[in-house]
Amino acid sequence: MSKHELVVLGQEPSAPACCPGLLAAPLDEEQAGELARVFKALGDPVRLRLLSMIASRAGGEVCVCDLTPAFDLSQPTISHHLKLLRQAGLIDSERRGTWVYYRLLPEMTDRLAGVLTRPAGSAS
Amino acid sequence: MSKHELVVLGQEPSAPACCPGLLAAPLDEEQAGELARVFKALGDPVRLRLLSMIASRAGGEVCVCDLTPAFDLSQPTISHHLKLLRQAGLIDSERRGTWVYYRLLPEMTDRLAGVLTRPAGSAS
Repeated sequence: MSKHELVVLGQEPSAPACCPGLLAAPLDEEQAGELARVFKALGDPVRLRLLSMIASRAGGEVCVCDLTPAFDLSQPTISHHLKLLRQAGLIDSERRGTWVYYRLLPEMTDRLAGVLTRPAGSAS
Repeated sequence: MSKHELVVLGQEPSAPACCPGLLAAPLDEEQAGELARVFKALGDPVRLRLLSMIASRAGGEVCVCDLTPAFDLSQPTISHHLKLLRQAGLIDSERRGTWVYYRLLPEMTDRLAGVLTRPAGSAS
């Protein structure tokens, strides 16, 4: 684990209190910039696989040592992808002993699901 | 409107019949690659604003001539962003006379909302 990995532990972007629906009204520039940052973090196959591995794990958290063997990528590359997911507010991490453990922050995926949901009463 | 704009009209990627939940089980490489392409299309503030303008328009479609004035960007740049949204299966377009009209493909946003929704019975 790199020193850099330690430095960013515990960082969590603040989520706005409110969740403007993407489909209900035009987003303003600030809302669009903030949401785009999270969608961009999801716009990579390795990060999506990592997120799904973390989110679907029974017990709710995964050791980085259980994530890296699933990929034909170096550990620093995996750590970089995990850092981007964490900076986007999608996962959190905690170091315990030798390893870092990751867990889903379901508030952010809930928020994204909400902004992608059609407003009530819209045509189907 | 460029010739290029005409060439890609009517292209729609085929959506898979099934919608694996991102949070329910690890995605395989193919599923992750396909979903990442759509999330990547959403990972840009201009494209998110365009999508929200199209999706929230009463009547269900928007002339490109009503989209460009909202941005301090050239029309070819706006057309490029619209092309990426269309290639991701998020919007469709139709040329009528001088202008191209865009509408949301809600099947894709529904699908994304579905993959980001927690499986029933998961801890809150």
